[in-house]
Amino acid sequence: MSRDSVVMLKEDHKEVPQTSPRHRVVVIGSGFGGLFFARAMRRTDADITLIARTSHHLFQPLLYQVATGILSQGEIAPATREILARQKNARVILGDVTGIDVGARTVTSELLGQQVVTAYDSLLVAAGAGQSYFGNAHFARHAPGMKSIDDALELRGRIFGAFEAAEIAESEAERGRLLTFVIVGAGPTGVEMAGQIAELASRTLKRDFRSIDPGAARVILLDAAPAVLTSFGEKLGDHARSRLEKMGVEVMLATMVTDLDAASVTVRDPDGGSRRIAAVTKVWAAGVAASPLAGQLAEQTGAGLDRAGRIEVQGDLTLPGHPEVFVVGDMAALKDCPGVAQVAIQGARYAADQISRRLDGQPARGPFKYSDKGSMATISRFSAVASIGRFQFGGFIAWLLWLAIHIAYIVGFKHRVTTLLHWAVSFLGRGRAERATTEQQVFARNAIDDLGEGYSPTLPR
Amino acid sequence: MSRDSVVMLKEDHKEVPQTSPRHRVVVIGSGFGGLFFARAMRRTDADITLIARTSHHLFQPLLYQVATGILSQGEIAPATREILARQKNARVILGDVTGIDVGARTVTSELLGQQVVTAYDSLLVAAGAGQSYFGNAHFARHAPGMKSIDDALELRGRIFGAFEAAEIAESEAERGRLLTFVIVGAGPTGVEMAGQIAELASRTLKRDFRSIDPGAARVILLDAAPAVLTSFGEKLGDHARSRLEKMGVEVMLATMVTDLDAASVTVRDPDGGSRRIAAVTKVWAAGVAASPLAGQLAEQTGAGLDRAGRIEVQGDLTLPGHPEVFVVGDMAALKDCPGVAQVAIQGARYAADQISRRLDGQPARGPFKYSDKGSMATISRFSAVASIGRFQFGGFIAWLLWLAIHIAYIVGFKHRVTTLLHWAVSFLGRGRAERATTEQQVFARNAIDDLGEGYSPTLPR
Repeated sequence: MSRDSVVMLKEDHKEVPQTSPRHRVVVIGSGFGGLFFARAMRRTDADITLIARTSHHLFQPLLYQVATGILSQGEIAPATREILARQKNARVILGDVTGIDVGARTVTSELLGQQVVTAYDSLLVAAGAGQSYFGNAHFARHAPGMKSIDDALELRGRIFGAFEAAEIAESEAERGRLLTFVIVGAGPTGVEMAGQIAELASRTLKRDFRSIDPGAARVILLDAAPAVLTSFGEKLGDHARSRLEKMGVEVMLATMVTDLDAASVTVRDPDGGSRRIAAVTKVWAAGVAASPLAGQLAEQTGAGLDRAGRIEVQGDLTLPGHPEVFVVGDMAALKDCPGVAQVAIQGARYAADQISRRLDGQPARGPFKYSDKGSMATISRFSAVASIGRFQFGGFIAWLLWLAIHIAYIVGFKHRVTTLLHWAVSFLGRGRAERATTEQQVFARNAIDDLGEGYSPTLPR
Repeated sequence: MSRDSVVMLKEDHKEVPQTSPRHRVVVIGSGFGGLFFARAMRRTDADITLIARTSHHLFQPLLYQVATGILSQGEIAPATREILARQKNARVILGDVTGIDVGARTVTSELLGQQVVTAYDSLLVAAGAGQSYFGNAHFARHAPGMKSIDDALELRGRIFGAFEAAEIAESEAERGRLLTFVIVGAGPTGVEMAGQIAELASRTLKRDFRSIDPGAARVILLDAAPAVLTSFGEKLGDHARSRLEKMGVEVMLATMVTDLDAASVTVRDPDGGSRRIAAVTKVWAAGVAASPLAGQLAEQTGAGLDRAGRIEVQGDLTLPGHPEVFVVGDMAALKDCPGVAQVAIQGARYAADQISRRLDGQPARGPFKYSDKGSMATISRFSAVASIGRFQFGGFIAWLLWLAIHIAYIVGFKHRVTTLLHWAVSFLGRGRAERATTEQQVFARNAIDDLGEGYSPTLPR
């Protein structure tokens, strides 16, 4: 019956153009691209159907604060459905998109074994990117990425859990392994995680333990590149690095991860030597790989894929031979466009404008141009780096700017107020309001699984 | 090596009385009993070691608000370690207590395969109770209980997920199953859940969907007893029942659950007939069973167990022949003491007082007497029932009282402020600030598991 319905819906689709004069737009993804596109289409005559795998819009730049106990998942993940509730021309469907058929102009999604086929006249694909372990899939188990609420809560359990386990550790070596945190990747996410774990250890947990000194925890930030925050330029990279080092973070550059297991990370040093770092908690903030939907679209349209699996779009963000299919955000390979929210937002608005112009019979715009509004990353409380046009600065002013911009982009008044309060708790005080972990997520249980592979915490190594 | 350490610690224990003059008190559990006991001991000369399975103190009476998207888990689950950070004579150990040896006076706990043996001079056991399915263990999979953060987040995923799945359901029957919520047990937790799901459906989600009317959801509150809130007396029970019915909740009393599967609940009606209710989402708020540690203690001391597995304590909350072992809260069988926070708190304070008196050489107090400060349950926003001494009342005043008391008992200023804000969002507005679910917890994925047993959403039944 499920198959029947697919056919039925497809037949519906064939007939709909005659019966419904409204232009049908399907959006895949509820990230910055998908959500901002849907909102930008609110005054058009089109019917928007947004299909996404999660029921929330994720404010990914603050995910590291959920992982380190500053914010709750609700604060950075408002329900997409609630955001679009009053937009009469929009509807939301929860489901994994399993297929796009650019010939038949349909999107197939699945939830709970139930397939839904949705027909479109225009399509915006903004399914984003996941973590990439560069072919080492087994790393994922030991070093969670930072892409979803699941990742952030898993890491919250592991980070706080490591201190719990260290408190009862039997040997100095065991305690050392448990109190070593390795962050792989020194881009903004890696820098922010390293800074937050360092602050957690030295400030938040300062008085919480009796057998260990949390401040003695080692926080290691690794990158194969020779600098941190390479996209910010040398000056800001150096600034961030020296701030991190002042906080006690060990920054290891030009250092490649060659292996990873439950209790350690093996790296190749700049001089070519191999070294094993004993560390139970690892965070992967290194590579991204575009959604596999990019591959599907490439096969059907002949568009190329880059090394990160992103699809090469045309100047107007559409695919060759398919002016009705737009791809924006982390899934699209575009020159001089970094994987940041602004690229997705601007691409989404450009696509909405193009579609609206077509509907209104207006001439198309010229090719998409990304206007770099600048980028920023926090290092610790009161300290950030910002690169805005020709201006590059670090320190307190950059941090205030970071604060203002992030508060402005958080969706919804209620989330702004609690976020500000939680920031006050963490930055002015020393607390973390959202430390709670589930029993499932508490380090202990994940670790038993992880450490199962021949690892015993009490074996000397 | 782990075994060695156990022995080593045991030997330590035997010698400690000579080397350390301080009285060693071990507390099992971080609920109301364990936490309030530890705090009550803060000015004594004893060393307190609190051992718990979760790293947080759970404010269980508000768990239903986490399940229905009003509060974040952090707001009702502050870190035990943080609460006790400044109490110099207290330490916290995370771990599952696997054994109590009242002869050797040791408690064995485990975390990450690592055993810790802690010796005591006095012991307070407050490990609480879990959900009981009255011998039907397979119910658990289909009808989560309401005892932990894991339960609440699981239910959050199932409740919001059911509406998502209904939005794309193919048949009226399927939509009906997905939009039917059955709450088993009409005590305070069941009443509060039923009221909240009804408000969620009729207010919060009102404008969020396009294919379904969330307000058409059926919310069914079942109990084998002939009344709701039996412990509150007939008048308040009737009041609560009529309020719930006005909100559209179907209250089915004198109705026994005889079976449960992924898609339905089978009940025996008051007239003895059997009936099957099609419902995907079930909540179990019916029975409790004391921690299995009660059984261990009973075996070693000869104390009896009641039907809920609670241990029969003596008048002073100790076990026969073991004046140094106290049991408080949901684990203890005590006449006229319901399973509420106040019983645990008062028992904890009584035990702390007894131990302090012994340490100070003062005479012991008479037997423990529970002073009933009253009980209350919310039904919906602006409506609650309260029973305080001879006064019984329902409505807005009861609700205001509920609000004030719960805010007062929430630990920590930061949690009070965000909780008040989230209540304003939900009670004055129509929103829910904490709707976010993980992908793991979203209904879809759990349901695929659950519904795996021969259930297909597209099969007519």
